Amino acid sequence: MERRQPVDSLVSVPVPVNPDKMKRYEKFADEIAALIRTGVLAPGQKVPSVRHASRTYGVSPSTVFQAYYLLESRGLILARARSGYFVRELAKRPLSEPGISARQAQTSAVDVSELVFSVLGSLKDPDTVPFGSAFPSPDLFPLARLARSMAHGVRGLSPHAVIADMTEGNADLRRQIALRYMVSGVMLPLEELVISTGAMEALNLCLQCVTRPGDLVAIEAPAFYATLQVLERLELKAVEIPVHPREGIDLASLEDSLRELPIKACWFMSSLQNPLGASMDDDKKRALYELLQRHQVPLIEDDVYAELYFGTQPPRPVKSFDREGLVMHCGSFSKCLAPGYRIGWVAGGRYAEQIRRLKLMTTISPSVPAQAAIADYLQHGGYDRHLRKLRHALESQQASMLASAARHFPASTRVTRPSGGYFLWFEFPEQVDSLQLFQLALAQGISLAPGPIFSATRRFRNCARLNYGHPWDAQSERAMEVLGRIIASF
Amino acid sequence: MERRQPVDSLVSVPVPVNPDKMKRYEKFADEIAALIRTGVLAPGQKVPSVRHASRTYGVSPSTVFQAYYLLESRGLILARARSGYFVRELAKRPLSEPGISARQAQTSAVDVSELVFSVLGSLKDPDTVPFGSAFPSPDLFPLARLARSMAHGVRGLSPHAVIADMTEGNADLRRQIALRYMVSGVMLPLEELVISTGAMEALNLCLQCVTRPGDLVAIEAPAFYATLQVLERLELKAVEIPVHPREGIDLASLEDSLRELPIKACWFMSSLQNPLGASMDDDKKRALYELLQRHQVPLIEDDVYAELYFGTQPPRPVKSFDREGLVMHCGSFSKCLAPGYRIGWVAGGRYAEQIRRLKLMTTISPSVPAQAAIADYLQHGGYDRHLRKLRHALESQQASMLASAARHFPASTRVTRPSGGYFLWFEFPEQVDSLQLFQLALAQGISLAPGPIFSATRRFRNCARLNYGHPWDAQSERAMEVLGRIIASF
Repeated sequence: MERRQPVDSLVSVPVPVNPDKMKRYEKFADEIAALIRTGVLAPGQKVPSVRHASRTYGVSPSTVFQAYYLLESRGLILARARSGYFVRELAKRPLSEPGISARQAQTSAVDVSELVFSVLGSLKDPDTVPFGSAFPSPDLFPLARLARSMAHGVRGLSPHAVIADMTEGNADLRRQIALRYMVSGVMLPLEELVISTGAMEALNLCLQCVTRPGDLVAIEAPAFYATLQVLERLELKAVEIPVHPREGIDLASLEDSLRELPIKACWFMSSLQNPLGASMDDDKKRALYELLQRHQVPLIEDDVYAELYFGTQPPRPVKSFDREGLVMHCGSFSKCLAPGYRIGWVAGGRYAEQIRRLKLMTTISPSVPAQAAIADYLQHGGYDRHLRKLRHALESQQASMLASAARHFPASTRVTRPSGGYFLWFEFPEQVDSLQLFQLALAQGISLAPGPIFSATRRFRNCARLNYGHPWDAQSERAMEVLGRIIASF
Repeated sequence: MERRQPVDSLVSVPVPVNPDKMKRYEKFADEIAALIRTGVLAPGQKVPSVRHASRTYGVSPSTVFQAYYLLESRGLILARARSGYFVRELAKRPLSEPGISARQAQTSAVDVSELVFSVLGSLKDPDTVPFGSAFPSPDLFPLARLARSMAHGVRGLSPHAVIADMTEGNADLRRQIALRYMVSGVMLPLEELVISTGAMEALNLCLQCVTRPGDLVAIEAPAFYATLQVLERLELKAVEIPVHPREGIDLASLEDSLRELPIKACWFMSSLQNPLGASMDDDKKRALYELLQRHQVPLIEDDVYAELYFGTQPPRPVKSFDREGLVMHCGSFSKCLAPGYRIGWVAGGRYAEQIRRLKLMTTISPSVPAQAAIADYLQHGGYDRHLRKLRHALESQQASMLASAARHFPASTRVTRPSGGYFLWFEFPEQVDSLQLFQLALAQGISLAPGPIFSATRRFRNCARLNYGHPWDAQSERAMEVLGRIIASF
């Protein structure tokens, strides 16, 4: 017989980010990694010697040793015989970063779905190098451990729950999600939480909740292509707001649009934006909230990459500043734990009840066994350990792709340096047509996501999103070389 | 390592209805049960003696004995000491059947969702007698066996499939479903099949595929309340077509409406209609198809109760007459195998590709492990054996509720006699207000589904749907008695 955990044992549940549970050397490694990422330690530079580091930072020499081994395995530093460790020479001439996207004609009907489907269709072949994929490699997920949680969770389901959980969602799962909000500074009443069939359903429901056909919705430029497809499907019009590749959306531009246009909702990714990887800082997030609050425009916050930050500091959602239920915060386990399980959620603020009803009228409920499996995994599976491993893998793969791009792509190529996620956004020389590039690359067995699918107005002709979510190997390197040659041929 | 089954071994997979696999005595019992259901053997009448039956039907005496034991355990016949078996006296004065619903003003905007939610909200309390429920008792499902299939299925999932199955659906599951179509006479190209998050998602997608806000959709009167909610949500207008409680929709009336109105789609349940339980016969289904084909109006065929027929002859879907892909046939495992797993499908005809795309834009995919679990169960779990048991349980429970209603409800009450499913539709005397009845019954711990939630125009004021999908016991009997008293008080 399964027993419910008493409520007061909740505090012992593992929490999203708890550096205290990391080993000392892991913490130290992360600190050094942050110095490398932010450029304090430049490529080619020697990292402090073990003796020096041990004295300076007050850690034991063996901690420093272990940290350096870890950083080496992550591909960030390199041992040179008899000289110590050096920051990996990622590139002789690292590519520079792109600028902010331009402001745009005011509103646009969306008609990009056909194009998106033709691109997505190309991803089916498992032998294609998956730079165009929307998912990280499934090999990065604890699928076997999840399968155990599934077997355990589904055995423990009462016949009553199989039906009752369809309306309310799995109680343990809801509690676990609310706990993770609590740790990240959001005190979430359980009633606000609606479990959904992945974040995609949640985002759809949120949008339907606050708009009607013909309404204007502010989105990012570039935006995740599914955002555009959903707008198209619901016959909504897009107001494209420029996004800075590091700092996120341009608030001044948004403010102008809010003043001039009857915008009914904003759909933004405030952290690790897809495709740019931009994350707004806390001040900017607060300012965004206050702006929307003044205009009483709801925010649909698409935060599906929240867990994939590099370093030790999780990004804070705009939702954490929300005092009046104006933010619908959508999350998911699909990109960080359990692809294919199709479990997401929305913390729906003042719209929660309406969202729940819309859900009952469309899919009724996400799969009850999948909810039970994830609830079990969150309690017993070692989620935070998995996440740390996943983040490190992604960080190291990003470094590899950046280095490879610097080796093989034209020097005038620009590229983002996101602090998390698994996408790089490339801005190629003007004459490169990424739709053509897409076709030529596909003929060589390489997929990529061409720029125009990220825009209601088919902009970003010379841009592309590349996925570094797969373990880097000789095939990846060769694929970058081939891409480089095709790009140069334009 | 799992190996794919070679294609030519498909024929050995268990098929939906295969009376040859039933034991001889089970077949014989079903034949006698059919005689009872159709009134050839009337309540109180003696069934043929063992010797007589053995001679007449050419079966061994022990087969007859076993069949009679089975019929006794199903509550259809009763042994009287030293006199043999008699058809159970279901009621001294069985209630009569209701007539066809009246024709209605032409079209109506739908505004019933609030009412439906307030009724559904009442079902949450597990101590309430669940006559208002939309599901059969979860105790009737092979949940433990399904859990084993889940554990097995999810262990066998390749990392590649976890992501790839989101686009295409689980290949084994698709094949198993197509096989069941084949056996029921529909040769279904696999490309037509879209796996969905329950039938509810499939129905939503079908409707969105062929309508735009403001369009007219022909539905049944009375109709399943979720149909009304979906129409309301999508801002579609209802054209209510009368339904005969035995023979299904009135084709003459439908023909008039098709001629007079720009109807964009029909959403019908041609077999075991909810709430009436009506099933159209094959000729009528063919005529319906030909009518729609002449008008080139697509049919969304909601067939979620297909597996819950009584007797040995599965109802044939309208889809089986479809020669040009005009019928979108929606099915589900939620009512007959795996509630809460949320796996349904649509055989989408000429609309399949568009439906698949809509699905990718809304929920992306139903849960991949749940698909694997059901695929495994269909291959190894004994689905047809389970279905036979389930049908027999429902048939016996229907007899119990009918008998109880005849004992406790006013003699002028009318009630349907569906040949499957788990709902009875009651038409009470004129002065009964079923919304009031609903409130009064709820106060006594009994739920029911009042008539007006089954109509866009809030008709059927003196009607209600009662669920007999739960094992019949003393509490059920008492609840019927209480309902009878409340009804009499009007």
